[in-house]
Amino acid sequence: MWQTLNARRKPAMTISRIHTPLTERFGIDYPIFGFTPSQDVAAAISRAGGLGVLGCVRFNDPGELDEVLEWMHKNTDGKPFGVDVVMPAKIPTEGSKVDLDSMIPPEHRAFVERTLDDLGVPPLPDGQDRLNTGVLGWLHSVARSHVDVAMEHTRKYGQIKLIANALGSPPDDVIALAHENGVAVAALAGARDHALNHVAAGVDIVIAQGYEGGGHTGEVASMVLWPEIVDAVGSAAPVLAAGGVGSGRQLAAAIALGTQGVWMGTYWLTAAEYNLGATTESGPSTVQQALLKATSRDTVRRRIYSGKPARLLKTRWTDAWDDAGAPEPLPMPLQNLLVGEAHARISLADDPDVVAMPAGQIVGRCNEIVPVADMIEDLVTEYAASIARLDGTL
Amino acid sequence: MWQTLNARRKPAMTISRIHTPLTERFGIDYPIFGFTPSQDVAAAISRAGGLGVLGCVRFNDPGELDEVLEWMHKNTDGKPFGVDVVMPAKIPTEGSKVDLDSMIPPEHRAFVERTLDDLGVPPLPDGQDRLNTGVLGWLHSVARSHVDVAMEHTRKYGQIKLIANALGSPPDDVIALAHENGVAVAALAGARDHALNHVAAGVDIVIAQGYEGGGHTGEVASMVLWPEIVDAVGSAAPVLAAGGVGSGRQLAAAIALGTQGVWMGTYWLTAAEYNLGATTESGPSTVQQALLKATSRDTVRRRIYSGKPARLLKTRWTDAWDDAGAPEPLPMPLQNLLVGEAHARISLADDPDVVAMPAGQIVGRCNEIVPVADMIEDLVTEYAASIARLDGTL
Repeated sequence: MWQTLNARRKPAMTISRIHTPLTERFGIDYPIFGFTPSQDVAAAISRAGGLGVLGCVRFNDPGELDEVLEWMHKNTDGKPFGVDVVMPAKIPTEGSKVDLDSMIPPEHRAFVERTLDDLGVPPLPDGQDRLNTGVLGWLHSVARSHVDVAMEHTRKYGQIKLIANALGSPPDDVIALAHENGVAVAALAGARDHALNHVAAGVDIVIAQGYEGGGHTGEVASMVLWPEIVDAVGSAAPVLAAGGVGSGRQLAAAIALGTQGVWMGTYWLTAAEYNLGATTESGPSTVQQALLKATSRDTVRRRIYSGKPARLLKTRWTDAWDDAGAPEPLPMPLQNLLVGEAHARISLADDPDVVAMPAGQIVGRCNEIVPVADMIEDLVTEYAASIARLDGTL
Repeated sequence: MWQTLNARRKPAMTISRIHTPLTERFGIDYPIFGFTPSQDVAAAISRAGGLGVLGCVRFNDPGELDEVLEWMHKNTDGKPFGVDVVMPAKIPTEGSKVDLDSMIPPEHRAFVERTLDDLGVPPLPDGQDRLNTGVLGWLHSVARSHVDVAMEHTRKYGQIKLIANALGSPPDDVIALAHENGVAVAALAGARDHALNHVAAGVDIVIAQGYEGGGHTGEVASMVLWPEIVDAVGSAAPVLAAGGVGSGRQLAAAIALGTQGVWMGTYWLTAAEYNLGATTESGPSTVQQALLKATSRDTVRRRIYSGKPARLLKTRWTDAWDDAGAPEPLPMPLQNLLVGEAHARISLADDPDVVAMPAGQIVGRCNEIVPVADMIEDLVTEYAASIARLDGTL
């Protein structure tokens, strides 16, 4: 496999710990929280001293998540890890998948079909059911089942220490359930007021995600947003810095700005252990090829992924939605249902110019395939060098 | 005057120097470069140990700039300072102001007139000539006269140590002229490739300005852009960090990310010494009232100020240009000629909801009117505290 080609490039780490109150709380070596949809990457992050957080949105079947969490238990040497769900605070009137499907205008479907044809994306292999191909994790009922599975696991093994929600404060009963099980609740915030709402709702940790981050983001950039949220929530909650972190210098900047650690997503997509989507035996997968060649200017922030503004890798797929003839994206959760099959088709295809992938501007720094342990070592080593440089100015 | 109401709030500074190679080069105490159109603020920055950089674009008459630089000489205790001009690398075919005026479509003029009426902005006082009211500094010939005046001054007093260009690399002969006079040349860059072009053109210092900055900005946010440009230019040029700096934590982040100092603009607009535009005897000026109440979400990035994307305070004036019926902004320099009189009218009016003002997202932190010396003390004190926090993690 590709990762075996990448040997460790450096001697053993010289900094064995970076202390912040959050590392104490979670019993981890470094204030590095790694969000990833890949269990291989999440487990490697926890093993290397960070906190791996498994993105659950791709698990349509709670049984599949259950199996993966069991695998995580067996592959994390007893180290803590977390899960990430996608759950609005207010439970929407949802109906069945079939009902929601009927709310999608035919013009939108026609545009998606036509675009996939134009881009040469093959249909799904025979036997795959269209209705079950879309990502159902965006639906509240499915996200709720993820929470239940995770809580069951933490009662059994005690390793799941964090549940993060990508759409803000989770519902009250989810927060209460997490707390009953000794699990901390984190929520993403793209603006000061959102952070204050999270804290008022009982969220334990605010993840301040700036404009440059991958996936759902607001308008305020990390340099301004992180300290603004730190000051706004004060002692009520620690803040994790998200959006634009892909080096030890940025980890140092995050701590300098008053946060207690970093929340990184894009960084791990070029980990050697990352193996989702179309893969090859001898080299990086299709999506990794796309990430490796992207610069910091090759992302766009659009509503086409989920219905809410999210930063994505700029590809021929996102370009198509910028065309004059393209329809306006639908609201959440309809947009994701609309493009669910398209995403599945794209992820099975092997064209790096047509991937559909959330990614932050830090993708410009993702220029090689590296094992997670080395990625963490890079962060820690450069962190220490940054502090030395700062010390030298006084 | 308002500034006399604001006494120093703290004991004397405990950190007398912050050393980087750039502070050594310029003989300044702190790596704090302050861009401002106000000579009072620029002089105060230099007196307090930073490098004040006077924005020249507002000087239509080179004689007026000459007088102001003379004033700067008398009010800076022999400390170094800089000037900032707005000059494209390629000299455009320019023609006279009257010729350019004829290229502005009547619909655009009608929109501006109608909008000012709707917003209740009074006409210019009698005796002010419309054609000479617009800001001519955007014209190459006028910017070039700023350079000549500045060089004459530095030959006389030797205090002008830096000429910065807001539109990238200045023309070759301007760089050569600056170097002959021992003046360093700095140029703003919003992307890695621009920075490389600047260095290739002979620019000495790259100012990496992120998306969140005020005025002209690109798409890449500071957290990602600063280290990217630092790595790209390597030892060929030091980098100043611009966009999102308004506290000592952000100064520490800038140094952590590998830059040699900060370039701040928005921060100084709420200095007690800032006295441009409509003012009051007893309190903050109209524009300062607007800045004081703005949050980090109250800016927009639009082409309406100069023809190129620039971040502005979001007001009823910028909202009007977002209306469905508003025309597309014109290219540079036509757009600035179009809105020049409007800007003059707006700046003389006294409505904080209708200012036309470049400002970065850091405006959310500009919440009080403070003398420059205190602003610098705040930066330095918080900088030291940030380093102590970083040191404490190891």
